Amino acid sequence: MKRREFITGLGAAALTVAARPWAAEAPQLRIEERRAGKLGSGHYRIGVLVFDDYETLDLHGPVEMLGHLADVEIELIGPGAVARSFQGPKVVVDRPLAQLEPLDLFLVPGGLGTRALVQQPELIELIRRQALMSERVLSVCTGAALLAQAGLLDGKRVTTNKAAFAWVASLAPDADWQGRARWVQDGNLTTSSGVSAGTDAALALIAEVRGEAVAQKIAEIAEYPWNRDADNDPFAITWGTDT
Amino acid sequence: MKRREFITGLGAAALTVAARPWAAEAPQLRIEERRAGKLGSGHYRIGVLVFDDYETLDLHGPVEMLGHLADVEIELIGPGAVARSFQGPKVVVDRPLAQLEPLDLFLVPGGLGTRALVQQPELIELIRRQALMSERVLSVCTGAALLAQAGLLDGKRVTTNKAAFAWVASLAPDADWQGRARWVQDGNLTTSSGVSAGTDAALALIAEVRGEAVAQKIAEIAEYPWNRDADNDPFAITWGTDT
Repeated sequence: MKRREFITGLGAAALTVAARPWAAEAPQLRIEERRAGKLGSGHYRIGVLVFDDYETLDLHGPVEMLGHLADVEIELIGPGAVARSFQGPKVVVDRPLAQLEPLDLFLVPGGLGTRALVQQPELIELIRRQALMSERVLSVCTGAALLAQAGLLDGKRVTTNKAAFAWVASLAPDADWQGRARWVQDGNLTTSSGVSAGTDAALALIAEVRGEAVAQKIAEIAEYPWNRDADNDPFAITWGTDT
Repeated sequence: MKRREFITGLGAAALTVAARPWAAEAPQLRIEERRAGKLGSGHYRIGVLVFDDYETLDLHGPVEMLGHLADVEIELIGPGAVARSFQGPKVVVDRPLAQLEPLDLFLVPGGLGTRALVQQPELIELIRRQALMSERVLSVCTGAALLAQAGLLDGKRVTTNKAAFAWVASLAPDADWQGRARWVQDGNLTTSSGVSAGTDAALALIAEVRGEAVAQKIAEIAEYPWNRDADNDPFAITWGTDT
């Protein structure tokens, strides 16, 4: 599914975005240019959502792998100047979330902090708009809860953290929830399972946009036993979502 | 090997430390108190070295796992106010490296930035002293280069990143280098292989200090296929260090 279809599929939401200044023609053209063939080798711009009590590996696992791409730019974007992970360490926010910009990839991690975020309509609206301005969207873990609350998952095949499955799924009852999947790709939307699953999903995405050999090389540099099989999800059994 | 034996094993280095104010009695007593039995369930203090061009997952993989321990405190310590990872995102330094403090665990990640750090004797000396003030030391990837340069690996069984093996090993020719090992524990020193190997080493350390069930539970929360076998190192073959 191309970005335009992704937007069309959202109906009214897409119309709202089209009427706003941040969905102006210039960014659209830049996305079209990238789609014309530069994606595989040209500049690749990634924005990563950060917020207090994000889960460390949700964010940094994919960043590790994506950050080895040639000509890649990774920005952390969020509502504050700094975001403290659930585990303690803090990251510096590079760009305010309110400053929406076209991205090749919008990465949405999860963590305990999503429980507070889903109750903040203004932030959810900004997340929705940033997702709509992005060529691809990748959620990790309960990052799917933010996309669900933003209405971006309805009608799509998706998955999320297995330990928090019932809560996240309750936010988007019209999505096609997969209780057993390391990650699921539906068009330009990839949703991955809990925490470490995001690392595998990121490698799968790299394989698609830059080729299998690039992904393999990055996994070797990171000495990471890459799980290439999206259907291999032993934690669905651990957490009882494999029904 | 207990901390005192670790220090004794370093000979002259230990004597130097004893003569300095930061190796005063009070911190020593705190370490003795912890050794008396609080380690398994009490407050656990972790300091993580950060520096520009650290490798993202070297740091955040172990932090993900260790950060789920009950009553844990994780501080980032480094020479600057902020450290930019090789992949781009920046972390906030919580404590200057010059302010040495007793730690339960000193975590030393690697990355391209170690090539510059090994040429800075003052920083290497601070790293050496912080290691000597710590109950345990865990290096990930080329973090072992910093410990090697500090003279902390001589006579010990150790490993490091497989892609940079020759360079790191050249810094400590008197260490017993293991070309095939996901991680190696020698007394209170654990050295792990490249990048993602640190995550497995951290779980092994958690199993030792808090019990196997705690480590297993954390791996399940993170939906992480934990490699429990330190001898399972397929990347030794990939990178040709399995000789």
